[in-house]
Parts: sequence; structure tokens; C-alpha cells
Amino acid sequence: MLLSIPNEEFKQRQQNFIEKMSEKDCDAAVIFAVTDIFYLTGFHFHPTERPIGLIVDPQNKFHLFVPQLEHEHTEEYAVVDHVHSYPEYPGLRHPMQYFKDVLIEHGVAGKTIGYDAIGYGSSQGYRGPSVDQLIDAKQFVSLHGVIEELRFVKSDNEIELIKESCRWGNLAHRLLQKYSKAGYSEIEITNRASNEATLAMIETLGPDYKPHGETASAYFRGQIGPESAFPHAVTQNIILSKGDTLVTAAAASVFGYTSELERVMFVEEYSKEQEKYFTHMYEAQEVAFNAIKPGAPCSSVEEAVQQYFEESGVKHLTSHHTGHAIGLLGHEAPFFDLGDHTIMEPGMVFTVEPGIYVRGLGGFRHSDTILVTEDGMEMLTYYPRDIDSLICK
Amino acid sequence: MLLSIPNEEFKQRQQNFIEKMSEKDCDAAVIFAVTDIFYLTGFHFHPTERPIGLIVDPQNKFHLFVPQLEHEHTEEYAVVDHVHSYPEYPGLRHPMQYFKDVLIEHGVAGKTIGYDAIGYGSSQGYRGPSVDQLIDAKQFVSLHGVIEELRFVKSDNEIELIKESCRWGNLAHRLLQKYSKAGYSEIEITNRASNEATLAMIETLGPDYKPHGETASAYFRGQIGPESAFPHAVTQNIILSKGDTLVTAAAASVFGYTSELERVMFVEEYSKEQEKYFTHMYEAQEVAFNAIKPGAPCSSVEEAVQQYFEESGVKHLTSHHTGHAIGLLGHEAPFFDLGDHTIMEPGMVFTVEPGIYVRGLGGFRHSDTILVTEDGMEMLTYYPRDIDSLICK
Repeated sequence: MLLSIPNEEFKQRQQNFIEKMSEKDCDAAVIFAVTDIFYLTGFHFHPTERPIGLIVDPQNKFHLFVPQLEHEHTEEYAVVDHVHSYPEYPGLRHPMQYFKDVLIEHGVAGKTIGYDAIGYGSSQGYRGPSVDQLIDAKQFVSLHGVIEELRFVKSDNEIELIKESCRWGNLAHRLLQKYSKAGYSEIEITNRASNEATLAMIETLGPDYKPHGETASAYFRGQIGPESAFPHAVTQNIILSKGDTLVTAAAASVFGYTSELERVMFVEEYSKEQEKYFTHMYEAQEVAFNAIKPGAPCSSVEEAVQQYFEESGVKHLTSHHTGHAIGLLGHEAPFFDLGDHTIMEPGMVFTVEPGIYVRGLGGFRHSDTILVTEDGMEMLTYYPRDIDSLICK
Repeated sequence: MLLSIPNEEFKQRQQNFIEKMSEKDCDAAVIFAVTDIFYLTGFHFHPTERPIGLIVDPQNKFHLFVPQLEHEHTEEYAVVDHVHSYPEYPGLRHPMQYFKDVLIEHGVAGKTIGYDAIGYGSSQGYRGPSVDQLIDAKQFVSLHGVIEELRFVKSDNEIELIKESCRWGNLAHRLLQKYSKAGYSEIEITNRASNEATLAMIETLGPDYKPHGETASAYFRGQIGPESAFPHAVTQNIILSKGDTLVTAAAASVFGYTSELERVMFVEEYSKEQEKYFTHMYEAQEVAFNAIKPGAPCSSVEEAVQQYFEESGVKHLTSHHTGHAIGLLGHEAPFFDLGDHTIMEPGMVFTVEPGIYVRGLGGFRHSDTILVTEDGMEMLTYYPRDIDSLICK
């Protein structure tokens, strides 16, 4: 059972990044994005006021720069060549002055320096100089999006972790459906389901399981009854009523990798009108599944779905694209969107979630996580999609 | 029972921001930071690939710019004058082109424009032009940190919400202590405690409660036994053993406002060595409490604590500053840090959490949330701090 990315894969990722740096004529690089640092080094952290950065020096060595309180933790968990630290933020001497020391000591100054962001950017009370205010470079070159693109095609290990995520999202969702009854409140149902699924998950996976994100959970985000017509609403703690349309979401992080499982459900019963929109949504998802194949642009999936919605007379009830890539982040590029012409490749993982929103009645959106394969796609989520399986009694 | 910020207070905040814009000679402003947008408008959202921004036009009207799928939700919940939306990201026409339309239509172009960040910056697959690439201005003026500074001194309503947060953090922590027993795993204990506290919280507060963040929770973040010597570690799912030092954390979000309660606890028993470091930590926290008073610089609190640590011969075992402000974010400026000379004012809310870290033995850190008052401070958290109350049996 795979529960983490092996160290060799982190080293391979670093090698891939160095090649991308070369293509952009960069001798060195500075990276501040949390997800990209985790992707390249396996070092997981919560950004605070204390800056953290990754440096690739002209000898292709990887340096993590962290606050002193993270130093030992970094030495233990990060796949890097060197760890450097500073006392504290803001401190008597600003952390970025120590960062500057590292850059100079390791020959980064005066070189062509790639960067994702030109400085550390946490919202949690941090202020400080950008890297171009600290040192001179031959040139500063934006590498924004480069690591994100390396993350587009998932490795076999990444796919295995995503499948593990789907398994526990499925359990959380099963329990959510079981506990969704009229008279119970949103938070009560979601906490009970999420808690029980998490307990089963950790007993099964054992102490090697590191979530690096949320453990198994299933929730509504306020999408209950008429409120479900607002996609991506936030938790409101609504009480469920008979006949409510519910829009759910379930997931679990496994070493940072996540998946997405969403279902339309109905409390006890559904009307003819609810059935009509459910059916259109269901068919739209089928249309999307059939349009996914390597070599085609992402936009072609959205075009097929929009054509179906147009022909079915419900296009005015739609309000978002059909899906997004997923992996270390809940939403990643590329997108199943009219304006995204990225070519689908085997190994890409996407959500498929065309939605219909009817004011006063509710939202209608399943989301499944799929893998693009050599000849089409594979479903990674496996919860029933048909209406009869989705009545909460 | 106050469970949200009244609309008049959002309007007052907008007025305060307009005054700050005037001081910087700004005719208009664009704001992209999630927390600042919530602070000014009450609009809570999860940033994704779809850009969201707040515009203040030269007539001092507030405009929220959101994706179509958030439009109705925004109309319902946001305290603003106008809501504008765009179809989708990336879309056939980029969202920021629609943003440009709004700027031009409302007379922002050509003016002196303040900004927090010069463009939308979510990591979740977004790319797009910055505002200065879209329109001309008389001048672009950074307002980075201005709204954060407005947030330094909390209003009576904000303090009431933080006190409500403390109440439920306290319950979660009480349950965490109750369930912390040798042989049980981290995630099992934390989920059980967090779940039960959340259920009690929502039954008590009723359907008007909107967390806009995490409901009641208590956890260890991997800080169990020798691993507790790593401050701010991440969840590892360790099994508790007799004699372990535990470092906890508990909180609850109430309409986005949070608090911090952390305790050192011991499983069943503690050694003389554990007692020694506990006592130093306890005394250091007392030193900090005594140093907190309006009119003094934040740095003076850290200086007093460091002097105590120095005199006690444990300074080499410390690795972070004594505390941070807290409110809508878990960590906010200013800081109890040698380099932060912000003057304490009545209404500021801080954590007080000097820590000692002993490799192989554990970490020793309580954190309490306090309010600076006219003549000193008031404890907002109220969990017992003495060693005898913190043994898990």
C-alpha cells in the first residue's frame, strides 16, 4: 500500500525542474509557492508570517530556507541538499537578509535567476523585500506556472495516492448519505460522517498515513434545498427537509493528494421537475466522459457539454465549466473550459462536473474524478450515479 | 448572542478604508486579498481559479467582481453597492477583460489607483494580466498592509465573536484532554473531541451560526512525545504513550473570527525534567502577561520573556517569538517580537505563547489569547494552566 511519494521521485522531479530552468536559460531559481515546494522536496508546511523559500543554486543544489523553529523538522523530512534557517520574523535582522546571505554564499547573485513569485507572500502579517531588492542578477526570469505544468501529468505513484483518496472519499460519502435525514442539521451530518470515515481510514492505513491535508470528509457547503442552487456556497448549518435537493462533496488527502466526489441527492423523495434536471445533468456528464481522450483539447469537452445543454434547453441554467485538473490542489490547471486549449494527455487527472442551477429548486451537479488513459478515460471515483441510488431515507 | 458583524459595521469599515485611501491620495482602489475583502464587505469565499476582486470607484462606491456562479450568493451576502460578474475562467474572453470594463465604466482608469496586490493571485491554476497591464492610471499606489492595520484594533463586536470562539475552543480542548490516553492515536482523539465539541456548538448556537472557517476543533499537529519538540509540526497520527509530553491547540471560527488555546499536557505522569521545563514555560508566560500594557511597544514583551529565559539558562532551547495578533487570520501582525515596535493599544488581541523545545523530550508551550485593555490585559481563554490540571489519565 503506497502512502507517500518515494525519495527518488522527488529527486526525479528536481531533475525535471532543472531541465525546465535550462530551457529558460536560468542558472538558479527561487521558489516561494507552498505547493510547488512540497512537490519538489516533500516538505509540507503551513505558511505563516515566517518566510520559507526554496533556492536552486548554479550547481543545481536544492536549499530550503526556513525559520529556526522548522529547522530540525526540515532536516528530517525534506528531500534537499541543504537546510538554512534564520532566528525569527521580523527579528532584529529581517529574515530576507539571511536569505540574501544564502544567495550570495552559493553564487546565485549576478546570475540569471528564475522565480515563481519575486518574494515571499503570506497574508499572515508578513512584510519584506522582494528578491530583486536584495541582490543583483544578470536577469530575473519569471518561471510562474512552470512547476504547475510539471504537475499536469501524474506519475503512477501519484495516481495510486489519488485512488487511495477516492476510496476514503467514497466511504465518507456513503456515511453522509446514510446520516442525511430530514430534521438533522448540516454540520451534525457532515461531522458524524467525516469523523467515522476518518477513524476507519486511520485504523486501516495505520501510522504511516500522513494526510498533509484534510482526512476523510463529506459535506454540503450549504448546498441544501433551494440554497443548493448556489454552487460553491459556504457552510450555513441548514436543517434538512423532505424533498430537499442536496449537493454534496467528499474527499480525503493522502500525502497531500486529493480527489473529488460530488453527488446530487434528494431527501426521501424527488419531484418530476427535480428528476428532469437530474437527468439532464446525468446525461451531460456522460457526454463529457465520451469526449475525454488524449490528443484532444480540453476545450472540446466543454464544447460537447455546452452543445448538449443548448440542445436540451437548459443552457441558461448553467454557470461554470465542466471540470478542472486535481492533485495536490483541489483545483489545478488545465480546465475543461471553452478557453483552455491544453491537449489532454494520458496521466492527467480531472474532475467532470457539469452543473445545472435552478433558482428556488436547487443545484444539480455530480463530480467524478477521472484519469485520462491511452484510449479514453478511467473513472477513479466509483460512487453510484443513478437517481434511485441517491435518495436519502 | 452575537454571531455575525452587523451591516453598519461593514459600512463603517468601508468609511475607514476610504479615509486611508485619501491619506495616500488615492481616487480609487482594487483589492484582491480574501481576508481584506471579507473584512470590508462580509463576503466570504474560497479562492479558486476564478478571480474575485473588490473595486472602490472615485465616487467611493464599492463593487464586488465575481464569477457568474457566485453572483446571486454575492448579491445576497455582500455589503457592497454593486456586484459584477463574468462567465467563467479562462473563458473565451479572460475575466480580467471584464474587470477592465468595470474599471473603465466606473471612471477608475486614469486616476490614482491604490492596490493591495496588482492582480489576482490564487495558486489554483489561475493566470492573468495584472491591473497595470489592463488600464492606465495617473499613478498606481501600493496599499499593501493598510487594511491589515485597520484590523489591528478590534471592535466590541469583534471581541465578542473572539470570546465566543474561545468558549468552543475550550470545550474542544476539555474533550481532547478527556480522550488523550496511552494507546490511542492522534487522529482518533482529535476527531472525537472536535466532532463532539462541534455538535455541542451548533446545537447551542443554532442555525444563525456561520463558521466561515473551521468549527470547534482540538488537535496536536504531530506534537506528541519527542515529536512535540518540533513546534508547528504537521499531523503524523502518532500513538500516545505513558509519559509523553503533548502540545495541543484548540480553536473555533465564529463568523471568521478565531482564537488560540494551546496547552502542554502529560500522559498519566511527568518526570522531574518535564516539570522543570514546564515551570520555566509557565513563568515565562506570566512574565509576558505582566509586560502587556497599552503604550508599550510589542518588542518590550519579547524582551522581558527573553530576559527571563536568559536568566533561567534555557534561552538556547527557545526558537520563536512570544506571540502574534489574531482575529480573522490565525496569525496576524503585529508580533511580540524583538523587531516589532508597534505600540500596543486597547482592543488589540494577541496570543501569548513563549515556548521551550527539548530534543528527545518534547515541547513546552501554552498559548492563551488575550485582549489589551486600558490598564493591562484581559485573558480571553480560560483553560487551567497549572501542571496538575494538565495530566491525561
